[in-house]
Amino acid sequence: MADQIIYSLDRFSSVHVDTEKQQVRGQDFITSLRDALPTWRAKGHRGVWVTVQKELSACIPQLIELGFDYHHAEPGYAMLTIWLPETLPNNLPAYANHYLGVAGFVVNEKNQVLVVRERYHNTNLRSPWKLPGGHADRGEEISTTAEREVFEETGVKSEFVCVIAFRHLHNYRFGLSDFYFVCLMRSLSSEIKACPNEIAECEWMDLEDYENYEKISDVNRFFVQQYREIVASGNAITPHDVRSYDRISWNKVYSADRLVEQDRDGQPAVSSVVSSALPPSAASDSSTAEGNQVLQQEKGEEEGSI
Amino acid sequence: MADQIIYSLDRFSSVHVDTEKQQVRGQDFITSLRDALPTWRAKGHRGVWVTVQKELSACIPQLIELGFDYHHAEPGYAMLTIWLPETLPNNLPAYANHYLGVAGFVVNEKNQVLVVRERYHNTNLRSPWKLPGGHADRGEEISTTAEREVFEETGVKSEFVCVIAFRHLHNYRFGLSDFYFVCLMRSLSSEIKACPNEIAECEWMDLEDYENYEKISDVNRFFVQQYREIVASGNAITPHDVRSYDRISWNKVYSADRLVEQDRDGQPAVSSVVSSALPPSAASDSSTAEGNQVLQQEKGEEEGSI
Repeated sequence: MADQIIYSLDRFSSVHVDTEKQQVRGQDFITSLRDALPTWRAKGHRGVWVTVQKELSACIPQLIELGFDYHHAEPGYAMLTIWLPETLPNNLPAYANHYLGVAGFVVNEKNQVLVVRERYHNTNLRSPWKLPGGHADRGEEISTTAEREVFEETGVKSEFVCVIAFRHLHNYRFGLSDFYFVCLMRSLSSEIKACPNEIAECEWMDLEDYENYEKISDVNRFFVQQYREIVASGNAITPHDVRSYDRISWNKVYSADRLVEQDRDGQPAVSSVVSSALPPSAASDSSTAEGNQVLQQEKGEEEGSI
Repeated sequence: MADQIIYSLDRFSSVHVDTEKQQVRGQDFITSLRDALPTWRAKGHRGVWVTVQKELSACIPQLIELGFDYHHAEPGYAMLTIWLPETLPNNLPAYANHYLGVAGFVVNEKNQVLVVRERYHNTNLRSPWKLPGGHADRGEEISTTAEREVFEETGVKSEFVCVIAFRHLHNYRFGLSDFYFVCLMRSLSSEIKACPNEIAECEWMDLEDYENYEKISDVNRFFVQQYREIVASGNAITPHDVRSYDRISWNKVYSADRLVEQDRDGQPAVSSVVSSALPPSAASDSSTAEGNQVLQQEKGEEEGSI
């Protein structure tokens, strides 16, 4: 019955089974799969990946009895795996284990920074005042998250300039790790319309007051100091549009560079608060100019990081 | 029967149920949970999180029938959720959606870079030669991943110096996003002992040959160019140890700074290939010196990124 299982192979010689695509269901599926495992092992196949749609989840207890375990799940399905080679360590790639949070550091022409107090803030935090921000949606660019979250939480429109700094933290939610990018934003509006569901309070606070606030955390003070460094030196973490491995799509690649602010025509812009605070050498240096077309990576698995 | 469910509440007023901790099991658990949902909704509770150990997975089809869906799963358990408020959008935080890959850019005293060809490399890739690297393990620092992966894949020992650049890519495995950090590494040994399971070939390649290799991708050429920039200018993305919100544990915070290489005593080091190639001003500047004690964040949820 092993030949009743419909499956595909990947370049790592692992077997992929989609429960939804099978012609046999229920106990027949489990029996066929059980019979297939030794055959696949004998052929040198490595892992078996089984996608189980939530509507077909009744087979999960039986898969677990066969030796499968969860790899990951998302709304709509669970993915279970088993490792076949008896003499090699399990080499199946782990699922995503990092969150990405992005905050906007928006400074206005009065040298005030936009800060919020969350409705559900943790009373154990040193400072209830934080920068507006939130988690990146699936597939979202850092700059887009910053602009979206600042607007959603505060009603202030702003535009990404550069990354001020980012924090890498471990043992965050469910024991995974968290990136927290703080982006320098050019404010495009000033009126505050705080989101009532998420935000208890929102205000433009004098930058000095925020930096000197007794409860400010060292991490947030670092971001303020680094903002001042960027204004003084023009050195920041800036994104570049670089063609991906397929030479068709584009990737964002971030490196330490002289900050060059450009307006929408690609010309150095000196109109904003931020760029007018930059030294002339930074505003006139155009060495980091790159194309600005960004396409999403389509079938990126092979071009990924490992 | 609703009061038979053992649960806890979080600061967002969501209910947490651990299947393993219940006194009622099987159909009684499902019935009690079903009865509890309208009560919790009436009380204004927001989400319900149910942790289901893999041994107790028989209840999953019934949870799905009650309106639950998968939030995530890991080896050993699945987490299912339901959103209770009928007039508010689902605000439960998404699970991690980023991979972190790290590669080592190891250059020796002959200006050769350490490159590998993977055993299971994708034949669609432009260049089969890539930098040694891999995915970060759970909770692993970027520098540790770089040192570990370079050693595992090539047998070469190396030490983290700074981040050269990093790429943010979307639609990677399972449609999630991927960070790929390339780290400048000081080589501590030169003999190659390539991992037979993962690596088909490994060599020290002249940096010029690698950069001029016709099949090199634009992304990899960008990393080479940025390496040259760092050697010329001393400007790089460097980590700092900053105290976390709890003022006890430490976080890594990365920003654009003058590269200061330090030996293990915290003194500027000029012995390595890299630092000897740096201009004197970079090697003698100690403005970015920070503490170097790094403790893991213990209960990090509230101090995270959102």
